[in-house]
Amino acid sequence: MSTASTSSLLPAQGPVPGFHAVVPAGGAGTRLWPLSRAGHPKFLHDLTGSGRTLLQATVDRLVPLVGDDGVLVVTGHRHADAVAAQVPALLDGPDGAPRRLLAEPSPRDSMAAIGLAAAVLLERHGEDVVLGSFAADHVISGTEAFERAVREAVVAARAGYVVTVGIRATGPSTAFGYVRSGEPLGLADAPSARHVRGFTEKPDEETATAYLATGEYRWNAGMFVVRARVLLDHLAAQIPTLAAGLSEIAAAWDGPDRDAVLERVWPTLTRIAIDHAIAEPVAAAGGVAVVPGDFTWDDVGDFESLGGLLTSPTLGDDTTVLRVDAPDALVVASGGRTVTVVGLADAVVVDTPDAVLVTTRAHAQSVKSAVDGWRERGRDDLL
Amino acid sequence: MSTASTSSLLPAQGPVPGFHAVVPAGGAGTRLWPLSRAGHPKFLHDLTGSGRTLLQATVDRLVPLVGDDGVLVVTGHRHADAVAAQVPALLDGPDGAPRRLLAEPSPRDSMAAIGLAAAVLLERHGEDVVLGSFAADHVISGTEAFERAVREAVVAARAGYVVTVGIRATGPSTAFGYVRSGEPLGLADAPSARHVRGFTEKPDEETATAYLATGEYRWNAGMFVVRARVLLDHLAAQIPTLAAGLSEIAAAWDGPDRDAVLERVWPTLTRIAIDHAIAEPVAAAGGVAVVPGDFTWDDVGDFESLGGLLTSPTLGDDTTVLRVDAPDALVVASGGRTVTVVGLADAVVVDTPDAVLVTTRAHAQSVKSAVDGWRERGRDDLL
Repeated sequence: MSTASTSSLLPAQGPVPGFHAVVPAGGAGTRLWPLSRAGHPKFLHDLTGSGRTLLQATVDRLVPLVGDDGVLVVTGHRHADAVAAQVPALLDGPDGAPRRLLAEPSPRDSMAAIGLAAAVLLERHGEDVVLGSFAADHVISGTEAFERAVREAVVAARAGYVVTVGIRATGPSTAFGYVRSGEPLGLADAPSARHVRGFTEKPDEETATAYLATGEYRWNAGMFVVRARVLLDHLAAQIPTLAAGLSEIAAAWDGPDRDAVLERVWPTLTRIAIDHAIAEPVAAAGGVAVVPGDFTWDDVGDFESLGGLLTSPTLGDDTTVLRVDAPDALVVASGGRTVTVVGLADAVVVDTPDAVLVTTRAHAQSVKSAVDGWRERGRDDLL
Repeated sequence: MSTASTSSLLPAQGPVPGFHAVVPAGGAGTRLWPLSRAGHPKFLHDLTGSGRTLLQATVDRLVPLVGDDGVLVVTGHRHADAVAAQVPALLDGPDGAPRRLLAEPSPRDSMAAIGLAAAVLLERHGEDVVLGSFAADHVISGTEAFERAVREAVVAARAGYVVTVGIRATGPSTAFGYVRSGEPLGLADAPSARHVRGFTEKPDEETATAYLATGEYRWNAGMFVVRARVLLDHLAAQIPTLAAGLSEIAAAWDGPDRDAVLERVWPTLTRIAIDHAIAEPVAAAGGVAVVPGDFTWDDVGDFESLGGLLTSPTLGDDTTVLRVDAPDALVVASGGRTVTVVGLADAVVVDTPDAVLVTTRAHAQSVKSAVDGWRERGRDDLL
């Protein structure tokens, strides 16, 4: 197959042939503590009250694009059982083996996670496989716009680009990084796709406002669509030892030597985020493209963000919550007790069986300090 | 005995002969919910972290004035066992009967409670008995000044007055009622005692400030010292049926007919506070005196008041509390869990096994609304 045949491979509806979704399920969600814990992180929670956890909702969103057997989840060893319990379809190997659930022996950051998935997909599905990486703990609404963006991204990926989705900003957020677009790629089947001129870290508000005024900037949601081969070739050029290590592990993954190779090679892998390893240097060389994503997206990074997503200010059983002169106080009622808030309009109260957190939406970013504080006191049991 | 012999009856140290303390232990402490509950009210709690409950501290404070067997507690039937467990010395009747613990079949307000105690003391100790009534749920520091005030009050009581203690105001509080003093009584052994010109309800701040500017006003702490006979004679003049009912019950109290008489008469008693039944009308007729109390007093009416009493902002195990940018947040840690407060300097967090309350010191008076709210929802189990 060649990229010349892409348009015939892209039905407007239904799974995209040769396209696989990779869902890295990691990150402790520290700023959502004590709801999110190291042992039961954010992606395992139903944070929207939809009845589906963030991980399940992510898989649900991707199946229409990749088919029933097209989602691969990469997670830490300690979360593998919980992931399997939430998405049993991943256990589709012989005797229910977790063929589409890759368990990392230890956290090595996002490049190792996504690179491992890319290398395993390459082994299993051949040179033309395209992968799309979508975090397990983001919230999206607007399925149609999401699918449209991803379908365009696949076209651009087949043309050889590392493709990201640029989310339409609803305001000058200081909580997200930005992607700056340049000239159109000029692909017939991906008319919105443009070159990426660069990525920026979280800006201050003034800078963010200036970004939006140019019309060139969108939020970087950390979604990447790319041919597995292209990704691994870029990685081989940037960090050869990491690419070689991942390829060696992937070659052994579906055979009898997986554990031995993992044990030997995994601890040697470079810890680096995919943004730093690939997106930024390749963008500087002109190899990254962006497609616009005009859907609602949030990384649910903290309680302010969570509050903005909920249709009710209670996450949990609202009959256990009483508000007096505090109609919008955000209450996470997961402790099995009653919660009463009097006169604190901006309050955030998170009730869990062993820890209660009280803060305000304005202090949402400071919750990380609470986690640090308990760690300093040696209370790792709470983290 | 006559009042002419009072000075010889008043040693400057040691118990005052013929003087008995009455401790009405009632009131739900609604504004201290969910720490204080109807089933386990304020007076049963150690609210100061002293190791003694408010009831125990009240008894401790009175024993030096009345002797080991001079304290009588009046409480509701449902709290009698808890009171006895906290103050076992009250069970000094035959076979450990609760001779000094009077259990009311149902709440009939403070006049019935104190009047019953007065009538029982009159039966047991005769016409010259003087009683002092001190609430079970107030906090006092300054033992010497307290004792000095009470000893003066007893002198004035023996001279026939209903005597209250006027607390030196530390500011124009709007949370307390005030007592206004007039001319000195002119008693040699009670040189500070003055006539009372009147009582006022809780004023607004402007009024309170004006009160203090006159030098005539002090806080009314609801303490009354009076001869039992004088109290009951005033009551007979004001509300004859109530006085007669109490006397009938008291006559039967230490005999076999107590329960039968209680069952018949108690429900007929007028519900009224002693302030309205006695203090206000008798003051208007010139029969009330005040002695100054230059000690620290608080009725611990709400969490703002509680916060002001504590030397640490944690009531409970401080190792279970973490504050981030909230050094003075008041935390009541009685839920067996950890409490974390981030960025809310004014916060009040009360953690109990079945209810957590989050408010601010500024909203301390509104906590009552929370209790009302849960009652409206039928959650009497929380109250």
